Amino acid sequence: MSLEAQIKRLLPGWLKEPAPDGDIVFSSRVRLARNINQISFPYHAGEVQLEEVIDQIGAALKSSSQFENFVLQRLDDMDQHDRVVLVEKYLVSLDLLKNPAHRGVVLNQDETVAIMLNEEDHLRIQSILPGLQLKKAWESAEQIDQLLEVKLDFAFDEEKGYLTTCPTNVGTGLRASVLVHLPALKMVGQVKKVLSVLPNVGLNVRGAYGEGTDSAGDLYQISNQVTLGLSEEEVIGKIVSVTKQVIDQERAARDALLANESRLQLENRVNRAYGLLTHSRLISSEETIKLLSDVLMGAVMNLIPKAEGQTVKELFFLIRPAILQKLIGRELSPGERDHYRAAVIREHLATSSK
Amino acid sequence: MSLEAQIKRLLPGWLKEPAPDGDIVFSSRVRLARNINQISFPYHAGEVQLEEVIDQIGAALKSSSQFENFVLQRLDDMDQHDRVVLVEKYLVSLDLLKNPAHRGVVLNQDETVAIMLNEEDHLRIQSILPGLQLKKAWESAEQIDQLLEVKLDFAFDEEKGYLTTCPTNVGTGLRASVLVHLPALKMVGQVKKVLSVLPNVGLNVRGAYGEGTDSAGDLYQISNQVTLGLSEEEVIGKIVSVTKQVIDQERAARDALLANESRLQLENRVNRAYGLLTHSRLISSEETIKLLSDVLMGAVMNLIPKAEGQTVKELFFLIRPAILQKLIGRELSPGERDHYRAAVIREHLATSSK
Repeated sequence: MSLEAQIKRLLPGWLKEPAPDGDIVFSSRVRLARNINQISFPYHAGEVQLEEVIDQIGAALKSSSQFENFVLQRLDDMDQHDRVVLVEKYLVSLDLLKNPAHRGVVLNQDETVAIMLNEEDHLRIQSILPGLQLKKAWESAEQIDQLLEVKLDFAFDEEKGYLTTCPTNVGTGLRASVLVHLPALKMVGQVKKVLSVLPNVGLNVRGAYGEGTDSAGDLYQISNQVTLGLSEEEVIGKIVSVTKQVIDQERAARDALLANESRLQLENRVNRAYGLLTHSRLISSEETIKLLSDVLMGAVMNLIPKAEGQTVKELFFLIRPAILQKLIGRELSPGERDHYRAAVIREHLATSSK
Repeated sequence: MSLEAQIKRLLPGWLKEPAPDGDIVFSSRVRLARNINQISFPYHAGEVQLEEVIDQIGAALKSSSQFENFVLQRLDDMDQHDRVVLVEKYLVSLDLLKNPAHRGVVLNQDETVAIMLNEEDHLRIQSILPGLQLKKAWESAEQIDQLLEVKLDFAFDEEKGYLTTCPTNVGTGLRASVLVHLPALKMVGQVKKVLSVLPNVGLNVRGAYGEGTDSAGDLYQISNQVTLGLSEEEVIGKIVSVTKQVIDQERAARDALLANESRLQLENRVNRAYGLLTHSRLISSEETIKLLSDVLMGAVMNLIPKAEGQTVKELFFLIRPAILQKLIGRELSPGERDHYRAAVIREHLATSSK
């Protein structure tokens, strides 16, 4: 299989176009936490109970033609690389991998739905879409939830709502998030200021790479803090409206960078980053993330003649250790990774159709 | 006129192929100092005497069909930019420009011969060829010398030889030099050691950019120290044989860099330099020289798929301030130079026919 064919196979299915506001928003995710009545929460459940969860889900999937294209995979049937690939595609959490026995994941064909089985809760129904499509992601998750609820007896309290392992998830069981790319706000020195107000309106922010509000790739995840006391519509609506404000501020910062002399400096910066990515023979993960951030902004702003935003976004995934090693087809030492990472970047950037 | 047409016009005529040992040797130069009897040396000569020199040369040039393609230009007929372009092409010295009145230069059509008039001596007959062709350059200068001697009465002492303004030039009046590119010796930390022995055998070394034995572009000029007591053949022979030893050591260092893991690091370094040069929108002169040095080595070692050594060598000239400003057609501020320098580099590297 050619490298490009392997790449197509290993890219997250959900990472495709069209992606509304995709110049700034990487992805929109919704997760619903659900548990089945009469079965202990996973951390207290025995093997038999955990298997009971998997069996019930399996039966529910078979009961509806709507689940025709959904596949249930047991984690103990997969090798560790394939499991980590799921994490790197944003389909499951690292927590799910801690103890693969009696754990599983249900995926639909285009990987826009991923249901984790026996992670912190019996079910974590996740929907993920490219760009700012949080409402659509929520509708998708809710549809799956309703289809499953026909067959499964979810733990629900009239007053509290859905019952979950962790009290912070009680209520709607909803966690919604968007992943935004804010390189211009970083460059003009305003990213901390812009993001610092989000906790005041009940939203969390964290860097996708690194700690706290710092992020090497200028990628930040914005999500809701609480699930109790707000309707799903209110939670989704708030994140969307705040994200739109952040988008506006990032766009204003990009416009400011295009004005006067700073335009040339910006073109210089993003094109140099592209030149390095298309010519390196050895590159570390840290340097790659930094350069990809510059190149992504340059590509979506049409400042780099040959670079396409979609191709650059894909590289954020292809350079991750497990995906990279699957691409190359074997275990790689850290030194080898720097070499093959550079090769994959060059190969993939060369496919830009621009 | 297109930029590429302008570039062709402004490149030094002598910088062409074939250039023997051109992977390491940029150029071979020979200069003969001559003065005319009965006329004071230039620094002590009055206007009438300086003009007398120019007149005598002009008449001598007209007397032989061998000088058909030679042109005498008065410096006071040229603007300052055009004069500096001659310096940047290695055709005349900066000293000649100090007082342009009553100074001149004679050039042949392909700029392999440049005779300075009324610099330190009445005539400085220079021959310059690409690569290691010192003997051929000397033969060319000697041929010009002999043709001129038929018409001009050169100051000559049976014991001392040719008389010159500066005592260090008395004798043969010969100064011979080669410009060598030694990036691999620099990388393996041996360049100072290799070059430090040259003064012991009567040769001078200096960095072409920067001071002493340090050179940002890894370009070093090797020349003879004295002109008295050695025949022309001996001087030329010594420089050629020492240069060949230096070439062997540089080639050995390049081979060492190609071995084992260091090959990948070398490919990484030279290709990154190429990526930056082909993508920068702003670049300083200092950074350019450093990157060009890496790219030149990578090109002649066939480590950079699209880069051609000849094109890279040409860039060492095209980025010089006066040539750059002639290319763009107007005076440029230092900031503008960084911008246009980057543009010329991109444009010219794109013409590589590889």
